[in-house]
Amino acid sequence: MSQIQSITLKHLSLPTHTFVPSKFKIPLNRNFSLTPRFTFSSSLSVKCYHPNLVQPKPFPPLPQRPPFAELPQQRVYVGYSVYTKKGMLTVIPRPPEFESKSSGAFKVSKEGYVVLQFAPSVGADEPIYDWNHKQTFSLSVSEMGTLIILGARDSWEFSHETVKLKSSKIDVRKVLKVEPLLDATGHLFSLRVLKKPANMEGIQKSIFLPVTRADLEVLRSLFNYIMPYLLGWNAFGNSIKPEVYSQVNSTNPRYGADNEWNR
Amino acid sequence: MSQIQSITLKHLSLPTHTFVPSKFKIPLNRNFSLTPRFTFSSSLSVKCYHPNLVQPKPFPPLPQRPPFAELPQQRVYVGYSVYTKKGMLTVIPRPPEFESKSSGAFKVSKEGYVVLQFAPSVGADEPIYDWNHKQTFSLSVSEMGTLIILGARDSWEFSHETVKLKSSKIDVRKVLKVEPLLDATGHLFSLRVLKKPANMEGIQKSIFLPVTRADLEVLRSLFNYIMPYLLGWNAFGNSIKPEVYSQVNSTNPRYGADNEWNR
Amino acid sequence: MSQIQSITLKHLSLPTHTFVPSKFKIPLNRNFSLTPRFTFSSSLSVKCYHPNLVQPKPFPPLPQRPPFAELPQQRVYVGYSVYTKKGMLTVIPRPPEFESKSSGAFKVSKEGYVVLQFAPSVGADEPIYDWNHKQTFSLSVSEMGTLIILGARDSWEFSHETVKLKSSKIDVRKVLKVEPLLDATGHLFSLRVLKKPANMEGIQKSIFLPVTRADLEVLRSLFNYIMPYLLGWNAFGNSIKPEVYSQVNSTNPRYGADNEWNR
Amino acid sequence: MSQIQSITLKHLSLPTHTFVPSKFKIPLNRNFSLTPRFTFSSSLSVKCYHPNLVQPKPFPPLPQRPPFAELPQQRVYVGYSVYTKKGMLTVIPRPPEFESKSSGAFKVSKEGYVVLQFAPSVGADEPIYDWNHKQTFSLSVSEMGTLIILGARDSWEFSHETVKLKSSKIDVRKVLKVEPLLDATGHLFSLRVLKKPANMEGIQKSIFLPVTRADLEVLRSLFNYIMPYLLGWNAFGNSIKPEVYSQVNSTNPRYGADNEWNR
Repeated sequence: MSQIQSITLKHLSLPTHTFVPSKFKIPLNRNFSLTPRFTFSSSLSVKCYHPNLVQPKPFPPLPQRPPFAELPQQRVYVGYSVYTKKGMLTVIPRPPEFESKSSGAFKVSKEGYVVLQFAPSVGADEPIYDWNHKQTFSLSVSEMGTLIILGARDSWEFSHETVKLKSSKIDVRKVLKVEPLLDATGHLFSLRVLKKPANMEGIQKSIFLPVTRADLEVLRSLFNYIMPYLLGWNAFGNSIKPEVYSQVNSTNPRYGADNEWNR
Repeated sequence: MSQIQSITLKHLSLPTHTFVPSKFKIPLNRNFSLTPRFTFSSSLSVKCYHPNLVQPKPFPPLPQRPPFAELPQQRVYVGYSVYTKKGMLTVIPRPPEFESKSSGAFKVSKEGYVVLQFAPSVGADEPIYDWNHKQTFSLSVSEMGTLIILGARDSWEFSHETVKLKSSKIDVRKVLKVEPLLDATGHLFSLRVLKKPANMEGIQKSIFLPVTRADLEVLRSLFNYIMPYLLGWNAFGNSIKPEVYSQVNSTNPRYGADNEWNR
Repeated sequence: MSQIQSITLKHLSLPTHTFVPSKFKIPLNRNFSLTPRFTFSSSLSVKCYHPNLVQPKPFPPLPQRPPFAELPQQRVYVGYSVYTKKGMLTVIPRPPEFESKSSGAFKVSKEGYVVLQFAPSVGADEPIYDWNHKQTFSLSVSEMGTLIILGARDSWEFSHETVKLKSSKIDVRKVLKVEPLLDATGHLFSLRVLKKPANMEGIQKSIFLPVTRADLEVLRSLFNYIMPYLLGWNAFGNSIKPEVYSQVNSTNPRYGADNEWNR
Repeated sequence: MSQIQSITLKHLSLPTHTFVPSKFKIPLNRNFSLTPRFTFSSSLSVKCYHPNLVQPKPFPPLPQRPPFAELPQQRVYVGYSVYTKKGMLTVIPRPPEFESKSSGAFKVSKEGYVVLQFAPSVGADEPIYDWNHKQTFSLSVSEMGTLIILGARDSWEFSHETVKLKSSKIDVRKVLKVEPLLDATGHLFSLRVLKKPANMEGIQKSIFLPVTRADLEVLRSLFNYIMPYLLGWNAFGNSIKPEVYSQVNSTNPRYGADNEWNR
C-alpha cells in the first residue's frame, strides 16, 4: 500500500517503547494550523503524516522506567496522542491501587490518574518529535474534572510542586496552563517545568502546543470514561450482580441502614 | 520518597475502617480557598495535604455497622473524597438489591443510592477531620439527577425525614442545601441534621463545606456512571449477548409484542 | 423498622408481577407538586410514599404476557419509575435480537427499545395506581435521541400507528406529547391512545403525568447508557480484546481497507 | 402479525450481507421530511417503512471484502442506520489492532474508527436504496470529536485524500461536508468522492442526505461510547482489578513515579 505524504514525522532518538502505531497517519483536519475548510473544486491540499517509527522514548536517565504504567500484571498500554507542528501530546491513564483487608475485601489505596506527555518538535518544516526533551504532567481525577468543564473561553492553571528522592534534593515545579487559542479553534497547552537543585540556579523548560476543540472533546470523553476506573468504581460496579445482592435485606438487616427513605 | 507538606490532616479519633488512602496527597488546586492562579515566576505556594492515617470511623454507637456497604459478598470499597479546610465530603455508592423469582429470574427489589459523608474540620490552621461528628445524607437516583442538572447559579434543597427503630423513637430530619458560592468557584454544601427524641428538645447539627466546580463535575461523571448500576441496568445490559438473544422471535412469538413499529 | 408515612399508594388490582420494590419509599423532593424548598426551622412537611404491594399488572386480556421483557434466557428485570399524584411512569428496556450467520458470527436482526408504561392514579387524596388501565408507548433508539436533546422549553410529539393481529382488525394509534410544564419544573408527558375496531367508533384514552427535570435527566442518563446495548454495540465492544485483534493486519491484509488514512 | 405500510424500501441489488434487520420499521418521526407535529384529532399520516431484505452489499469490485469489519475472530456486526428519502446512512465501528510485546503485554498498534456508508435512494415516491452506488467515508477518533461538538448552527468539512494500491494508480479524494439544514431540524451530510485514474479525467460522485438532530444525538452517544474502545482504553479499564493492582507499590517501587502528588 502506498501513501501520499507531505509531512513525515521524524524522531531524534531511537525509542525503546512503541506507543504510536508505526503506520499511523493523521488526516488534514487534525492539524490545527492548516486551513480547516476549503472548497472541493479547488486543489486539495490534504497532507497525511506518516510517522515512521514514532516511538516515545522514556527519560534517558531512567531507561528502565516503563513509560506506560508498565506493571508485571498489566497487559495493555493505551493512550491518546495529539500531533501538532509544535509538538506532540500523549495522554496515558494510570491505574489505581488497591489493598486487601483482613476480611478479604479490597479498598482503593491510591487513586489512578492520567499522565500528559509533551514532546517538542524540533523540525523546521516537518514535525520531528524529540523524546529526549519530553516533559510530563500528571492530572488527578479532580484536575480532570477541571479540564472537562473548561469552556471555550476559559483558562486554567494547574500547579504541582514535587521533590524527588531526598538524595537528589531537586525541587521540581510544574505549571500547566490551558488558554484559549486566539483563533478560537481550541486551547493552548503550555507546560513550564522548573528543576532547581539545592543551592543552585533552577533550569526552566517550556513547551507549548495547541489542542483543537475536537481533540479536547476526545480528551473529555476519555476522561469521563476512565474516571470511574481510576477511582475503582468499575470494580464496585462489576460486583453488582443479582446473585450476589439478592435478598440481602432479610439476612443482613443492618445493611442499608443509611438509606434514609427505607428505614 | 520525600514530600513537601505544609498541611497535614489529622484525626481526632482512631478509625477502624480505612477509606482514604494513607498516602493520599492533594495538589494545590483541589483546595478551593487557595488562589487558583498565580504566575510561575513568583514563589510557588503549593501546599500538599498528607493525610496521615485518614480513616473514616463509623458512628460510635454502631461500631459494628460497616461504613462502606460492607456485605459478606462485597469485596470492593470505593468512594470519592473532596478535601477542604472546612471539612471533608466523601461520596460512597451503595448497591441495589435483587430478589429472585420462582422462574429463576431476578428483579430489582431496592434501588441503590449514594451516601454523602460529611466530616467537619476542627483544626485551626490545618484541616483536622473529626469523624466522631460525621453526618451523612443519602441521595436517591432521582436526587442524583437533580445534582447533575444543577446549573452554576442554581440552588437546591434536599429534605429527608426519617424515624429510626421504634424503640429509639427519635425523629431525624435532614436538610441538604446546595448553593452557589459567592465567588462562583463552585457550590456550598450545607447539611443540617435535627435529631429529636420524643417529648424532648431536638439537637441540631450543621456542617458546611464548599465543593469546587471541578469536583462537582467529577461527582456528575460518577453519578452518570453509577446510576445504571444502582438501578440494575448493568445486569440487564450484561445479559444482552448474541447467543442469548438470537432468533428469539421465532421461538417466542410473544416477545416484543409492545414494539410498536414491528407488529 | 418504622416509617412515617403520610401518603400510601394503593392499587385497584392485584398484580401478578412485582416490579416496584415492596418497601420502596420516595422522599419529598421526588414529588413535583410539593414545595421544593422550605426552611429547616419550619415544620417539615415531608411525606413519604409507601407503596404497599405496588405491583404492575400486565394487561388482563394477556395475563401470560410478561411485562418486563421476560424471556426464558433473560434473568434480570429492570426499569425506572417516576411516581406522581397523576400517575406513574415506568421505563423498561427491551433487548435487541441477534441472528447467527453461516460463518458463526452474529449480527443484530432487530434493535432494542424502551417501553414507557403509564398507569393513571385514581386516588383522590393519595395516588392509587390503576394497572388495569395502563397504557404503553415504545421508544426507538432514534426517539430516545429526541428526548435526550429536548430542551427545557422544547416540545415534541411522537406518533405511532400500529395494527394488531389481522384477526383483531383493530387500529391502534398512539401519540405521546412531551411539553414543558408551566412552572418550568419539568415536562408533561401526555399519552393518547385511540383504539378503533373496524367499522366501529374508536375509543380514546388519555393519561397525563408530569416528569421533573431531575427525573428527565435520569432518563437521559439511562438512555445514553442503554442505547449502545440496544444496538448491540456492547457485544461489539466486548469483542475488542488485544488477544483477538492482535497482528490482524499481517494475517488478513484485507482488513481495514476502508481506513482512509492507512492505505 | 400484520403491519400498515405506506413506504416499502426496495433495493436494486441482491445483497450478500444482511445488516438492517429484515423486519425493521421506522416510525414517522424518524423521517425528517414529514411534518413532525400534528394534532391527534386529525387523520394520522403515520407511514412505516418495511425494508424487506434491506441488505447492504459490498462494493461489486471487491465482493470478497467484508462490509462490517468481518474478521475470523469477530463475531458481532453492529451499526446504526439513518433512513431518509434521499438515502441511507449507516455508521459502523471498526476495532483497533493490538500487537504483543516480548514482555507478553499488548499495546494498540492501530486505532479503531467508524465507517459512514452512504447509499443513495433511486426511488421516485419511495426510498429505494442502491447499494451498487454506495460511498464510504471513515472517521478517525479525532474526527468523531469534531462531530460531537458540532453545534446546531455549525458546519464542518472533513477531507481525505487516499491512494489505493500502486497497481491501480487511482487517486481518491473524499470530502464530507456537514451543514445545518435550512429548517434547523438537523444537518445535511454531503459526501463527494472524486476518483481519478492516472492521466485520466476524474469521476466525481456525490450523495446528500439529511440527518435529524435526534439521530445526530444518537451518533454522539454512540461515538462517546465507542471511542474508548477504538483506542483500546476498555482493555486497559478491564485490566483494573483489585487483585491485580493490589499492593503494587511495595513490590514495584518504580510504579507511579510520575504521580506528582505522591512522591
